[in-house]
Amino acid sequence: MSLVVVGSLALDTIETPHTRVEKIVGGSCTYCALAASFFTRPMIVGIVGEDFPRETIDFLQRKNIDLRGLTISKGKTFHWEGRYGTDPNQRITRKLEMNVFQDFRPELPPDYRNTDILFLANIDPDLQGDILKQMKDPKFVALDTISHWVEKKKNALAKVLERVDIFFCNDEEAARLSGENNLVRAGQDITRMGPSTVIIKKGEHGTLVFGRDLLFGVSAFPCEKVVDTTGAGDSFAGGFLGHLDRAGTLGEKELRRASAIGTVMAAFVVEDFGIHRFRSLELPEIEDRLEKFQRFVSI
Amino acid sequence: MSLVVVGSLALDTIETPHTRVEKIVGGSCTYCALAASFFTRPMIVGIVGEDFPRETIDFLQRKNIDLRGLTISKGKTFHWEGRYGTDPNQRITRKLEMNVFQDFRPELPPDYRNTDILFLANIDPDLQGDILKQMKDPKFVALDTISHWVEKKKNALAKVLERVDIFFCNDEEAARLSGENNLVRAGQDITRMGPSTVIIKKGEHGTLVFGRDLLFGVSAFPCEKVVDTTGAGDSFAGGFLGHLDRAGTLGEKELRRASAIGTVMAAFVVEDFGIHRFRSLELPEIEDRLEKFQRFVSI
Repeated sequence: MSLVVVGSLALDTIETPHTRVEKIVGGSCTYCALAASFFTRPMIVGIVGEDFPRETIDFLQRKNIDLRGLTISKGKTFHWEGRYGTDPNQRITRKLEMNVFQDFRPELPPDYRNTDILFLANIDPDLQGDILKQMKDPKFVALDTISHWVEKKKNALAKVLERVDIFFCNDEEAARLSGENNLVRAGQDITRMGPSTVIIKKGEHGTLVFGRDLLFGVSAFPCEKVVDTTGAGDSFAGGFLGHLDRAGTLGEKELRRASAIGTVMAAFVVEDFGIHRFRSLELPEIEDRLEKFQRFVSI
Repeated sequence: MSLVVVGSLALDTIETPHTRVEKIVGGSCTYCALAASFFTRPMIVGIVGEDFPRETIDFLQRKNIDLRGLTISKGKTFHWEGRYGTDPNQRITRKLEMNVFQDFRPELPPDYRNTDILFLANIDPDLQGDILKQMKDPKFVALDTISHWVEKKKNALAKVLERVDIFFCNDEEAARLSGENNLVRAGQDITRMGPSTVIIKKGEHGTLVFGRDLLFGVSAFPCEKVVDTTGAGDSFAGGFLGHLDRAGTLGEKELRRASAIGTVMAAFVVEDFGIHRFRSLELPEIEDRLEKFQRFVSI
């Protein structure tokens, strides 16, 4: 199979109670593609400015990520600045500079339009709809969003969701979108809006996965060391979709395995700032952690 | 084996966004003993006033709970009044009338002093220590507390914890007691304070269980209907200890099974106000839910 990831490549300035890092590489597309690259060969669609490190582009290439859909544009890369509290699951956005991302109207390269899985990471739902129209006949479409769009563009989001198979959201977004505080009912309601699979991410509390006549829950991996939670959700999606791309089906067994892999990839990425942990990560470590995780959740 | 539960029997006034119920039967000891009664024959130690419903005492007796340690005293039963928000995991205490519980100095009946498992549900840690001294040679001592004691009597709590095998607390209490916000490290720290098994209850987010060289996580059971979360933690402890009393060991396999049973018992009790759900509950329903739960957490 094949996987296209459309989303942001960014420079992030991150402040935690202990450290501040300036303009390190981030972005939903970057995290997702890197996490997926351990299981498949993802293609990406995104835009960066001239200030995006050449070294990172080389690294993405070494990780076997197909960069034909990456535009390097005059100007500066999308910049996000955020601060985390002592609770690493709580963050505030302090600055958002769209830069070259402002007028990004993604065009899929012709070779990308036959792809089996399309992942629309968080962007404006209208844009997500436009990209979806460029695809020939994808096997699965996956989509992520943020609460901003649930609030500001609920109708556009609902419209694109009708054509989506796998929807990733967090607990707050699920509650807002469905108008239902009970997450079990919220997830079930959202499966009736289009997606056959709904994944509610609860940060350190794990994940709920809803399908047709299917509901299962995956704890988070117990992390002793949490440095930076930026990109955890995108890395979950990357591991999840990377596995599904390899497996080729949305069968129950594969959905469970994909969720475990997503969980473990998220647990790796939070161990260091930005994408740093993915630089040293090797497949045997992932497999070892999957085994540990299997024991962790066994009752 | 045999299990003694020492704690409160109460009348609770509970307000949720939809309903208010006045002076229904509650109390840590009541919930715990009822949950345990499906697996063993618990003995209780507690005190009620003359206003405690005779019908409930008959019900506890029919559930095969040994009431020789129950004192019926002149005066009124301990009364708690609380209000839940739209998030059923958030509650505030609006009134606390100690009544006959004020001067409760539990004396274990002689027959109780040889019991295998002693469960000290939440009361003043000094009192918990006094009761512990009355025991001959229990196989396991389990203890629960609330954040009030962690704040106000941390030293007394630390002292009694040295003699405890199984410690139940919630995430907030674990963080306060250990001074560590990361729950994985918090739980590990607390195992070094005495208890060989530490159970951190996270409400709707499930449970973390720490042992010597052991850590596992149990999701909450997905509840579509949550009417009243009062007593969920005590029902978890009851199911957990009821199973251990039947199993007779703190081996890993039994700890995992006990956690699953505790989770399922908590998921039943929240479906109705107070202890009401335990009135209709039958063992086959519990077994059925345990099977469902096994599938729910399987990856």
